[in-house]
Amino acid sequence: MQVKVEKKKKVAVVGATGIAGQQFLIALKDHPWFEITVLAASPRSAGKTYENALRTPNGQVNWWQYEPIPAAFRNMIVQNSEELNLKELDIIFTAIDTDAAKALEPIYAAEKPTISTASAFRMEADVPLLMPGVNSNHAAMIAQQQKNRGWKGFIVPIPNCTTYGLACTLAPLHKAFGVKSVLMTSMQATSGAGRNGGVLALDVIDNLVPYIPKEEEKVENETLKILGELGSNGQITDAKIGVSCTCTRVPVTDGHTETVFVGTHKPVTVEQATAAFREYQSDCADLPSAPKNFFQLHDDPFHPQPRIDRDSDGGMTTHVGRIRAEKVLGGIKYVLLSHNTKAGAAKGAIFVAEYLLAQGIIK
Amino acid sequence: MQVKVEKKKKVAVVGATGIAGQQFLIALKDHPWFEITVLAASPRSAGKTYENALRTPNGQVNWWQYEPIPAAFRNMIVQNSEELNLKELDIIFTAIDTDAAKALEPIYAAEKPTISTASAFRMEADVPLLMPGVNSNHAAMIAQQQKNRGWKGFIVPIPNCTTYGLACTLAPLHKAFGVKSVLMTSMQATSGAGRNGGVLALDVIDNLVPYIPKEEEKVENETLKILGELGSNGQITDAKIGVSCTCTRVPVTDGHTETVFVGTHKPVTVEQATAAFREYQSDCADLPSAPKNFFQLHDDPFHPQPRIDRDSDGGMTTHVGRIRAEKVLGGIKYVLLSHNTKAGAAKGAIFVAEYLLAQGIIK
Amino acid sequence: MQVKVEKKKKVAVVGATGIAGQQFLIALKDHPWFEITVLAASPRSAGKTYENALRTPNGQVNWWQYEPIPAAFRNMIVQNSEELNLKELDIIFTAIDTDAAKALEPIYAAEKPTISTASAFRMEADVPLLMPGVNSNHAAMIAQQQKNRGWKGFIVPIPNCTTYGLACTLAPLHKAFGVKSVLMTSMQATSGAGRNGGVLALDVIDNLVPYIPKEEEKVENETLKILGELGSNGQITDAKIGVSCTCTRVPVTDGHTETVFVGTHKPVTVEQATAAFREYQSDCADLPSAPKNFFQLHDDPFHPQPRIDRDSDGGMTTHVGRIRAEKVLGGIKYVLLSHNTKAGAAKGAIFVAEYLLAQGIIK
Amino acid sequence: MQVKVEKKKKVAVVGATGIAGQQFLIALKDHPWFEITVLAASPRSAGKTYENALRTPNGQVNWWQYEPIPAAFRNMIVQNSEELNLKELDIIFTAIDTDAAKALEPIYAAEKPTISTASAFRMEADVPLLMPGVNSNHAAMIAQQQKNRGWKGFIVPIPNCTTYGLACTLAPLHKAFGVKSVLMTSMQATSGAGRNGGVLALDVIDNLVPYIPKEEEKVENETLKILGELGSNGQITDAKIGVSCTCTRVPVTDGHTETVFVGTHKPVTVEQATAAFREYQSDCADLPSAPKNFFQLHDDPFHPQPRIDRDSDGGMTTHVGRIRAEKVLGGIKYVLLSHNTKAGAAKGAIFVAEYLLAQGIIK
Repeated sequence: MQVKVEKKKKVAVVGATGIAGQQFLIALKDHPWFEITVLAASPRSAGKTYENALRTPNGQVNWWQYEPIPAAFRNMIVQNSEELNLKELDIIFTAIDTDAAKALEPIYAAEKPTISTASAFRMEADVPLLMPGVNSNHAAMIAQQQKNRGWKGFIVPIPNCTTYGLACTLAPLHKAFGVKSVLMTSMQATSGAGRNGGVLALDVIDNLVPYIPKEEEKVENETLKILGELGSNGQITDAKIGVSCTCTRVPVTDGHTETVFVGTHKPVTVEQATAAFREYQSDCADLPSAPKNFFQLHDDPFHPQPRIDRDSDGGMTTHVGRIRAEKVLGGIKYVLLSHNTKAGAAKGAIFVAEYLLAQGIIK
Repeated sequence: MQVKVEKKKKVAVVGATGIAGQQFLIALKDHPWFEITVLAASPRSAGKTYENALRTPNGQVNWWQYEPIPAAFRNMIVQNSEELNLKELDIIFTAIDTDAAKALEPIYAAEKPTISTASAFRMEADVPLLMPGVNSNHAAMIAQQQKNRGWKGFIVPIPNCTTYGLACTLAPLHKAFGVKSVLMTSMQATSGAGRNGGVLALDVIDNLVPYIPKEEEKVENETLKILGELGSNGQITDAKIGVSCTCTRVPVTDGHTETVFVGTHKPVTVEQATAAFREYQSDCADLPSAPKNFFQLHDDPFHPQPRIDRDSDGGMTTHVGRIRAEKVLGGIKYVLLSHNTKAGAAKGAIFVAEYLLAQGIIK
Repeated sequence: MQVKVEKKKKVAVVGATGIAGQQFLIALKDHPWFEITVLAASPRSAGKTYENALRTPNGQVNWWQYEPIPAAFRNMIVQNSEELNLKELDIIFTAIDTDAAKALEPIYAAEKPTISTASAFRMEADVPLLMPGVNSNHAAMIAQQQKNRGWKGFIVPIPNCTTYGLACTLAPLHKAFGVKSVLMTSMQATSGAGRNGGVLALDVIDNLVPYIPKEEEKVENETLKILGELGSNGQITDAKIGVSCTCTRVPVTDGHTETVFVGTHKPVTVEQATAAFREYQSDCADLPSAPKNFFQLHDDPFHPQPRIDRDSDGGMTTHVGRIRAEKVLGGIKYVLLSHNTKAGAAKGAIFVAEYLLAQGIIK
Repeated sequence: MQVKVEKKKKVAVVGATGIAGQQFLIALKDHPWFEITVLAASPRSAGKTYENALRTPNGQVNWWQYEPIPAAFRNMIVQNSEELNLKELDIIFTAIDTDAAKALEPIYAAEKPTISTASAFRMEADVPLLMPGVNSNHAAMIAQQQKNRGWKGFIVPIPNCTTYGLACTLAPLHKAFGVKSVLMTSMQATSGAGRNGGVLALDVIDNLVPYIPKEEEKVENETLKILGELGSNGQITDAKIGVSCTCTRVPVTDGHTETVFVGTHKPVTVEQATAAFREYQSDCADLPSAPKNFFQLHDDPFHPQPRIDRDSDGGMTTHVGRIRAEKVLGGIKYVLLSHNTKAGAAKGAIFVAEYLLAQGIIK
């Protein structure tokens, strides 16, 4: 899938002032195919320079990335997300909350490809929950979506950041052995909750919280859709897998760890499962944001560890360790780690756009 | 089980200078039935005052409890654990490592009741893994052990701190519904690893470690023995339950959290499971170290949380929250929390001794 | 100062739903002199039971204390803080933000003694910044305040939680040796920032923040007022001390640690400074909330430590350790720890009310 | 100072298996001037492959860096540090403890340039405590050292990691305004303590420790030597500055933060101090490990923050923020951050070697 992009696509980042929006800026600042021409946010921020839009009344600049605001964006004037000039754009990336997404994304999608990090449209019947390398063929749903809705563009949301790593690791197992049941416990990073209403220090110092509202349902439902079969009618038939989760919040900044117990239809040994991960061929390895290795396997049982491993391969690989026989379910158990604010958020959305561009679906 | 102890029993704490030994001192300093008359440790510490035995070359006093060294022990002379005068003692509590336990505990047990926090003898066929309120009837194995080994005393080890909470919560479920399968993920506190070779800050700041050597096997094996049936031959038949665990270390000082997925033989609703926990009658509620409530149930789905909940009821209750239907296994899922250095260590050992005294097995 | 209170005083806690308000409930639930008869909060909460007022849309009960909501308050109906029936109250404790305090406290104080945790009135000329045991004589300003303002009641605010420990430790040094200069660095707990706009986990995991808006100015100004001289004109002359601070936020839940370098007018040895702390006589030691020891001195240079030491003596003592000669300034340097949400907040305010009651100023 | 190195120098890393030694491997793996030809460690490790030398009895490979063991070193055979063939080496880097350094470094230095991270020789009269860009002229002491000791090589130790940032920031202030007094409080990362006897999680979760043995004396003494004057007799006259420190350990993995209060001889404004930092000309900016900016200045008062800022500029810059007037001492106060395991350890030692090579002192 060698692609040559002659002229960079013009992209807008909507919700550019939030933590996920900032991650888009970092991920896009030197992107070979995409160029941010519009930063958009709520009317409150519109008309300000980007830096000033980040400034709080007490003078703090609410920029939370590990490198400074890219120079190209510091003084760019933030536009009102409700009044974008869509004609001058090729792609819209959104990093906004569910309610804003429900209102704005259909407006964008009527005209342009809209890649969303919000959950608003994930479970709609004509919307693919696209994960390049996992269910790339679901991209075929886009034509149907456009037809149904009379849109020139479309909406493709990325899955929940906790679903992401789970679906990545189930894909090769499902293909090779048939997954029957999945029992997963997540230990999720605090960055996943963003900053407005984000996780308070008091809640996770010397502590963990055994509940994240709505998270378990999302993971269970999204996983079945992602691993589902796309029928000739353009409809997904959910995968027939029993999925049960407990999602917890732990004192980690970035990187979701998940312990996974998998029951399979066919017998599977540790060696076979390891080989399935090792030999898994993503169909997207040439895309700019693709990890060099779709999976990074760990022999050392003390890994993967979030602080040590999360940033390897640009935060886009999925780490798998502690692969062991699962005797109760009949299958395999393992521990995975994926970067919730890279693979599971902005960079993951960009990866989707790259795939759609490479496929000619984004033009 | 009302008991009146006329004269306090004389007890030794062996391994008194370690973190678990220190916990014995705190738990025993005002105990109504037991009085520490001997503090023992390795020959290196013997002959020093207790405080001096805790002192490092750079002058630090390695005392890690939340209250000062109890005055009664500060200047007590530490005895050599290899040369205890057992005649002057009624009970030996040990807080030593496995190798030391293998060497010393049989010597103690030949003469006196020895309650151990070490794993050395847990899986021996004539040794009960006694949890008052869970498998109190296993105390009957002691007579057989004495006969087999020609001992006047005996060894009763307590289970691993991670096993403790799991076995507590499985007991009422197993009794009421028959437990078929258990998939558990632990998020364990750092105090469980002690201080020599303890968990380093570098390993758990903004991080977690998905592996604790030998822990999963212990939990799996001990759980089956604890919930096993004591036959008329004095032998335990392990419970017929499939148990599979992933044990991780998280940045929490005290309190092990476990997410548990349970499959049951009989159907069970959330209400029935909740009732089983609520109505569970421990047969030891009158013992000095017994929790007021064997289980503390949480309606608030954000609980139990280790920092907030671990110390309630003297650290001796087992917290259960997030009780939900487990559809994949057919059963119940929940989150538990128990205090690994109280219920799961020193205080738990004292609780065992209280039970054996109340039963007349310790005299 | 032996006091006998025949009939408990009726008190209101205003701002009862916030974290500081909750601390008042815990501290007052079994108080020998005070009885909460009114829980008040903003109109949004008024009319609900206390528990329901704590409930968020997603069902979480925002109660963050280590013990459950005291039974007496769970179903008490929350009153509107703007419409209190002051006649039925003896004392008002406020735990509200600055703007609310500016609006409401004068209304309360016109009728009743109002003890405030807010900063709104701390620096007003006729308002004492009262710390029993440190500047108890400043209570005499209350009569002047009532005269100036035509109030039947009065406002007495407590100092900032970071000022509290500093002023406590400077008091004996100032008295004995004359303090000339103070250079202080604080390492402050996250609980000090409350929960609305509280410190986010992302900001303090594997991190610290070297700035707390407005904190340094508060500490510098309040310290001079607290240690100032009350003239016969009822005015405070600020202490003539140079105070310079850097206030930082660290990953600790409760307990502010401060490193203090003090220059003194008279020469002082470590022994003399230690004696000054040890022999310091608080004039309030008999009050119900007074610590047994006004200072807890630590010989072990590794202490005080927030997690280990903060709760000793009910969180009302000030810990002092690492007392060393300060050669650059000519004086003494040390490390202090005080509990920012006990001595430095609700319990500290109650302590003030006890003192004023014992003095007959609250009737 | 443009330098062209034709042929890479052959270097040994002694203490290669420890955490500081591992940092040398990462920092040297692609170095343009240096090539590791020898990995050395204690006799216990000698003869094993490097990876096997890191392996513990339970199978864990004790490698703690964020990237894997560089392929070039994984199977290199570790040599016995007591039996190095010095003839085949150009430079020795040591990352060993004080006692080992006392024994081994003179043996190495008799033959070859030895750059040490240990404290053993720092305060010897003929040993420079060299910081390129701060006291580069102290390199002239090396000739004297060789003459005194009859060595063909020499020892140059780097300063303590806490001294490093302090001395960097004092250098421009001392030059421009004359520093009279320094009161510093450090909040040090846990990585500074290494792993053997390293900081335990229990000590810094929800906690900090207000004491680090021997650290304050080191910082005070080393600072005076580094900023001292090299006389024509080859002797350093210590700077006439009063330095007083309190060193604490906080829950941060990497990056030492220091709050600094500085009194100056000449008056200084915030603008002047800021300019002094901004305009400071390091004489080493062209060296491979030199930071692009010797100082990184922060306008945002919430920075520098260790997790966010420590890695910028390769971990070799010194961050300065919160520059404010210091009214009590008459001078300037600020907060600094430097990377204790990069600038303050392995990479800092390599930087010294680069400087000495560029100067022709290492040949």
